[in-house]
Amino acid sequence: MIYEVINLNPEHEATLTCFRQQVGGEFGNIVKRPAMIVIPGGGYQFCSEREADPIVFPFLSAGYQVFILRYALQKKAVWPNPLRDYEDAARLIRSKADDWGIYPDKLAVVGFSAGGHLAASAATLSAPDCRPNAAILGYAVLSEESAHEWEKTAPGLPEMVDKDTCPCFLFASRNDSMVPVSNTIAFMTALEKAGISFESHIYAFAPHGASTGSSAVTPPDALNCSRVPHWVDDSIEWLKDMLGDFGDGKMTEPKCGHYVNADAAGGFSLDNTVGYLMSDPRSRAILAPIMEAAQKKANEQWGGGEDSGEDRPGSAVGMRITLREGLKFAGAPEEAAQQLEAALKAIES
Amino acid sequence: MIYEVINLNPEHEATLTCFRQQVGGEFGNIVKRPAMIVIPGGGYQFCSEREADPIVFPFLSAGYQVFILRYALQKKAVWPNPLRDYEDAARLIRSKADDWGIYPDKLAVVGFSAGGHLAASAATLSAPDCRPNAAILGYAVLSEESAHEWEKTAPGLPEMVDKDTCPCFLFASRNDSMVPVSNTIAFMTALEKAGISFESHIYAFAPHGASTGSSAVTPPDALNCSRVPHWVDDSIEWLKDMLGDFGDGKMTEPKCGHYVNADAAGGFSLDNTVGYLMSDPRSRAILAPIMEAAQKKANEQWGGGEDSGEDRPGSAVGMRITLREGLKFAGAPEEAAQQLEAALKAIES
Amino acid sequence: MIYEVINLNPEHEATLTCFRQQVGGEFGNIVKRPAMIVIPGGGYQFCSEREADPIVFPFLSAGYQVFILRYALQKKAVWPNPLRDYEDAARLIRSKADDWGIYPDKLAVVGFSAGGHLAASAATLSAPDCRPNAAILGYAVLSEESAHEWEKTAPGLPEMVDKDTCPCFLFASRNDSMVPVSNTIAFMTALEKAGISFESHIYAFAPHGASTGSSAVTPPDALNCSRVPHWVDDSIEWLKDMLGDFGDGKMTEPKCGHYVNADAAGGFSLDNTVGYLMSDPRSRAILAPIMEAAQKKANEQWGGGEDSGEDRPGSAVGMRITLREGLKFAGAPEEAAQQLEAALKAIES
Amino acid sequence: MIYEVINLNPEHEATLTCFRQQVGGEFGNIVKRPAMIVIPGGGYQFCSEREADPIVFPFLSAGYQVFILRYALQKKAVWPNPLRDYEDAARLIRSKADDWGIYPDKLAVVGFSAGGHLAASAATLSAPDCRPNAAILGYAVLSEESAHEWEKTAPGLPEMVDKDTCPCFLFASRNDSMVPVSNTIAFMTALEKAGISFESHIYAFAPHGASTGSSAVTPPDALNCSRVPHWVDDSIEWLKDMLGDFGDGKMTEPKCGHYVNADAAGGFSLDNTVGYLMSDPRSRAILAPIMEAAQKKANEQWGGGEDSGEDRPGSAVGMRITLREGLKFAGAPEEAAQQLEAALKAIES
Repeated sequence: MIYEVINLNPEHEATLTCFRQQVGGEFGNIVKRPAMIVIPGGGYQFCSEREADPIVFPFLSAGYQVFILRYALQKKAVWPNPLRDYEDAARLIRSKADDWGIYPDKLAVVGFSAGGHLAASAATLSAPDCRPNAAILGYAVLSEESAHEWEKTAPGLPEMVDKDTCPCFLFASRNDSMVPVSNTIAFMTALEKAGISFESHIYAFAPHGASTGSSAVTPPDALNCSRVPHWVDDSIEWLKDMLGDFGDGKMTEPKCGHYVNADAAGGFSLDNTVGYLMSDPRSRAILAPIMEAAQKKANEQWGGGEDSGEDRPGSAVGMRITLREGLKFAGAPEEAAQQLEAALKAIES
Repeated sequence: MIYEVINLNPEHEATLTCFRQQVGGEFGNIVKRPAMIVIPGGGYQFCSEREADPIVFPFLSAGYQVFILRYALQKKAVWPNPLRDYEDAARLIRSKADDWGIYPDKLAVVGFSAGGHLAASAATLSAPDCRPNAAILGYAVLSEESAHEWEKTAPGLPEMVDKDTCPCFLFASRNDSMVPVSNTIAFMTALEKAGISFESHIYAFAPHGASTGSSAVTPPDALNCSRVPHWVDDSIEWLKDMLGDFGDGKMTEPKCGHYVNADAAGGFSLDNTVGYLMSDPRSRAILAPIMEAAQKKANEQWGGGEDSGEDRPGSAVGMRITLREGLKFAGAPEEAAQQLEAALKAIES
Repeated sequence: MIYEVINLNPEHEATLTCFRQQVGGEFGNIVKRPAMIVIPGGGYQFCSEREADPIVFPFLSAGYQVFILRYALQKKAVWPNPLRDYEDAARLIRSKADDWGIYPDKLAVVGFSAGGHLAASAATLSAPDCRPNAAILGYAVLSEESAHEWEKTAPGLPEMVDKDTCPCFLFASRNDSMVPVSNTIAFMTALEKAGISFESHIYAFAPHGASTGSSAVTPPDALNCSRVPHWVDDSIEWLKDMLGDFGDGKMTEPKCGHYVNADAAGGFSLDNTVGYLMSDPRSRAILAPIMEAAQKKANEQWGGGEDSGEDRPGSAVGMRITLREGLKFAGAPEEAAQQLEAALKAIES
Repeated sequence: MIYEVINLNPEHEATLTCFRQQVGGEFGNIVKRPAMIVIPGGGYQFCSEREADPIVFPFLSAGYQVFILRYALQKKAVWPNPLRDYEDAARLIRSKADDWGIYPDKLAVVGFSAGGHLAASAATLSAPDCRPNAAILGYAVLSEESAHEWEKTAPGLPEMVDKDTCPCFLFASRNDSMVPVSNTIAFMTALEKAGISFESHIYAFAPHGASTGSSAVTPPDALNCSRVPHWVDDSIEWLKDMLGDFGDGKMTEPKCGHYVNADAAGGFSLDNTVGYLMSDPRSRAILAPIMEAAQKKANEQWGGGEDSGEDRPGSAVGMRITLREGLKFAGAPEEAAQQLEAALKAIES
C-alpha cells in the first residue's frame, strides 16, 4: 500500500490522504480499482477522526483506492469553499487515474453528517467533470434548515436533486437528535421523484455520529441498535450493484442502472414505462396495436367489455412497468421486441 | 407444535391458521411467547401462499406463536370487511392468551403488499383493543391512490397515522413497479411527523412480491439485490428491541420505546425535548435557571456575548435533545435530575 | 403445510412427525423438495424438545420437507433398535417420494448428541437403500467410549467410516464436558482418511445441547460464543453445495462431490490425483510422456538437472492435485484433456 | 494512521510494516490497542501480497495496531531464521508498547500456509518473552511431512504443542491439494490433548491460498464455498472472547480462558475437573463427603444401590465437569463453594 498526504488547497488547509493498493502482479485480475473519497463530518467545525480512518479500512478491504478529504472548516467553510475542495480532489484523482490504478468512471464518495452534506453537494452541485458515480450519505445534513444550523451559507440539497444526480445509498438513525431523520427522508423523496436509483436504511435508534457502529469506534455506552453496523457491508454490496465487481481483467457489468427506468433520461426505448410511451403521440402510435391486443386478451381472460380494463384491480400497474417487462410478461418473441426497439429509437431522428 | 385452522368468519371465508409452540417443560425459561399474525398479500384478490408459510417459519424460529390470517377477498373485500377479520383474529388471540401461552401485550403483525395495507390498517384504524404492538410492512400498499388501484373502498393510511399508531418496521424495493416505493416513503414521513418509532429499509432493486428473498421462495430469474433477505433477521432483531427478548421466566425490557421522545404523549418529564419544555410557560419556568447557567457556561467556553448562543453552529440541537440527555451531557448529578423530574411531574396536578 | 404424526414402530414407541410443504402452484419452479430427518438427542434416554421443533423451522425455511424421528429409548434403545427406526423412516420417506413431493436422492439427516450418534449410524451402518445423501452431526456422540457412556450396546462410529459414508457437516463446542470434542475430531479424521467431503466447525465455547443457539431455545445464562448460531445457515448453504439449490423446475447441479477426488471411488479418470494415476502401471504408462514434458519444462524454468525436481520446494504437490487441475495449470488444450480422459477410461475394459 | 516500514534484519531482508492507529483524543475510551502480526505465506519462497495488505485491513477495522512481518526466504529460510525474525518483531512491538499504544499482553499473530507454519512456530517454539497471546492459523503447513515439502529444515509442530501453547483459531479447506487438511486436524488434535482452548473451521472446498475469500482478493474463477470469507469476522469475534473488547478506558474481561479447565495448569481449584480432583488423594479427601452425598441423592432420585451410579447413562460426565459447574448444577450455596475453594488452594502450601 502507498500512503501519502497531498495538500489540496493550503489556504483552506484542505488535504487529501491517499491509501493506494497494488494493481496487477499477484492481483492478476485487477488492473484498475474503483475509488472512494471519504468525507468526515464535524458540523463544518472540525473533521472527525472517528469518520476518517475507520471508514477507510472497510473500503480498502473491498478493493478500493481510498482517499480522505479534509476540507475548509469554520470561517473558511463559507460556501462554496468546501465544495471547491471536493472538486479539487475529484479532478486530481481522475487526472491521476492511470498512474494510481483507478477507473475514472467509478469514483464514489461517502460522507457523514456535515461531510454527508458535502458528499450530497458533490452529487448535486459539483461541476460536471467532478460528479461522483455513486454517493453514500450517512446521517447527513441535507435540508436547508439543518444545513444553516451548522453553516449559514450552506445550501439545502433535496431541492437540487435532478436527473444528473448520481445513485445514492442513505442511512440514518430514527432518533438522531443532532440531525433529524427528516433530512434523509426529504432527500430520498427527491430522488424518488427524479427517478434516480437509491437504497436507504433508517435504523430504529443510534446516537448521532455512530460511524461504523463497531466497538472499535463507538464508546461502550452508545445505544446503537444491532443493525447499525450493517450499513458498511450493505453499502459495499450496493456499490458492486452500481459499479460492478472485480472480474477477469475488468469490472463486471453493474446489476442496477442510474435510473429506475429510462423515462428520466428522455428518449424512447423498451426501458421506458408503458405510461411514458403512451403519453407521447409518436410512441403511442407504435404501441397502440400491441395495447389493443393485450386489452382484448385480458378481456377474454378476465371478462368485461372493451372499456372495463381500467376498473380491473391492478390495471394501473400496466402503465408503470417498462415495455421490456411488459413484453416479457406477455411472452412476446425476441424479434418483436427488437422491431419495437428499432421503431422507438427511430422516432427522434 | 400444535397446528390448527380456525374459521373466523365463514361469510368472509376468513380463517386463522395457528402454529403454537410449547411453553415451559424443556423450554423452562419461556412461560409465554409473543405472537405474530402473518397477513399475505394478493391485491385483495387472493392470499399468496408465497407470503404465508414461508413467513411463518422464521418467526417460529424466533420463538413466536404464529398465525396466518386469511381474510375477505374480491367482492367480499369491500371495506371494512378485511379489517373486521383482522379484529376478529386479534381479539381471539388476546382472549386465548393464557391457554395459548401468549403475552397479550406483545402481539405483532406482518403484512405484504395488500396484506401490508391490512397490517397498516390494523396499526392505525382498528379498534383500541385490537391494536397490534408492532407492525412489519413489506412493500405495502399504503397511499389512497395505490389502495384504490386494488380495492376502491380501501382507505389511504399515511393520513391516519397518529400518536396511537404502533411502532413500525417498513421495507420495500426502490424499483417496485406494482406498488411504488412512494407508498413506503409517505408512511414513514407520517410516522416521523407523529413522533413514532420506526425502522425502514428500502432495497435498491427487487421485483414486487419478493417475500423472504430466499431461493426457496423466489424464482431463480428474480432480480433481487443481495440485501433483500436481510429484512427477515433485521425485523426479528427490531422486534426484540420493541417487545423484549426471552429472559429468565419473562421477556427482557425493550430497548426502544413507542415514541422517539415523550413530546407526542403529552405531559411533562425528563424525556421531553428541551424545546417542548421551553414552549410551555409552566415547564419553562422550571427550566429557566438551568438554561441560563448552561448559556453562561457555553459563552465562557466558546466566547460571545449573552445573546450570541443562537448563532453558534449546532446551537439549535439543544432544543431537540431530551432534558435527560441534556443533563447527562452536562454531567448533572443524579439528584438534580430527580428534583427536576419531580417538579415537572407536579405541573399537571 | 401438512402436519402429521405417523407411528413407525409401536413397540419402540417410534414416530415420524411430518411437516410437508406445497410444491407447484405459486411455487411454480419447485416441483419437488429435498427432505430432512431431524433426530433429537437425549442420551438415548429421552428425545429433547429443544432439538426437535426448533430444528425443523429453519429447514422448512430452506425449502425442505422435514421430519422429526422419535426413536427407541431407554431399555428399548438396545442396539440396533434405534437404527431400525431410522431405516423405517428413510424407507417410508423414499417410498412416498412422489406423493410427498420429495427427491428421493436428496434425503439429509441432522442429529444432536445421542441423536448425532444415530445420524452418524445412518451414514455409516444403515442398509444401502436407507443411506442419507448428507448428514449434519451436532455435538455428536461418536466414539465407542462415549457411545457406551449412554448406551452400552451402541457402536463406535469413526471406525465404520468408509467410501460409502455420505458427506458430513460436523459442529461441536470445544469445551463440551458432556460429549468431548474428541468425538468430532475422531470422526472427521476418519472422513479425511476415507476421502469423503466434509465441513466442520468447532466453536470455542458453548455448553452441551446448544441446539440452534437462538435466544428462543437457549436459556439466557448459557455461555454460547457468538459463532454458535452460525451452524444453522452454514449447514443450509453446505447442503446447497452438496444437493443443489432450487432452480427452474429442478435442483441446480451440486458444487461439491461426494469425494475430494476420484481416488476413493476406484477407476481411472481426470479426477484422480496424479499420484494415484502414477501408482498403477496402466495409467502410469499413459501419463508418463506428459510428466516427462512437465519435468523438463520445470527444469528449464527453475534450473536443476533431470532428477532435481523432487527436491524443489512444493514439488510433492504435483502428486496430490487431480490430473484435471494439473492440465488446467499447465494450460493444456481441451482436446488433449479429452484424449487423456478417453485413454484412462479405456483401461478398465 | 501512521505507516512505517522497519528493517528488522537486513541479512534476512526481514522487515516489519507498521499500521498504527490513534489512541485517545476522539477515541476517548481507547487508551491502548491489541496488536496483530500478519505473516504471509508463500512456501518459504516468497511473501504473498495477497496475504499481506488484504489481511491488515480487517484487523485495522477491528481496532488493532497491525504489522506485516516479512521474514527470511528461500536459502535464508533455513531454520530457525524465520522464527528469529518473528522473535525480533515480537520483542520490538512489546518494547514499544507504550509509545505505540499497545497492550503488550494482547499480541496476536495470523499466518497463512507457510506463514501459518511460522505463526504456529511462534505459538509453540518461540522464546517465552516472544510468545503470542493468540494465534490464527490459515490453511497452515503444520506437520513435519508437509513442512519438509517446502523447507527441509522446518520442524513439525503438532508434536510441539504443550500447556504453554497459546489459544488458536484454525481454518482450512477440506480439498486443499497444496497443504492437506490433515495438517490442521493434527494440530487441533494436539491442542485438544493439551487442554488448550481453540476454535476451528474447515470449509467444504476452496483452493489453497483463499486469503480473505473476498472478490477483491480471489480471482473470479476460484471455487470458494460461500462460508470461506466468514473466518475473518469469526476470528475477530474469537479474539474478543480471548483478549477482550474495547471498554471504557480498558479492555473488557475475556469470556474464554487459555485452558478448557484448570487441569492443564496444575494446582487445585474449583476450575479443575472432578475427575482430576478425585485422582489426587489430597483433593479427593476434601471432595469425598460431597461426592457421597451427591451419590446418595442420585440413588434416591434414579433408583439403584450404592454402587449402581457408575452404570447409569451419562454417569461418566460427572468426572469431566469442573467442580464449579458441578456445584452450580447441584445448587450448592456460594459459601460452600468458597470454603471448598479455600480448602483446595490450601493443599499446595
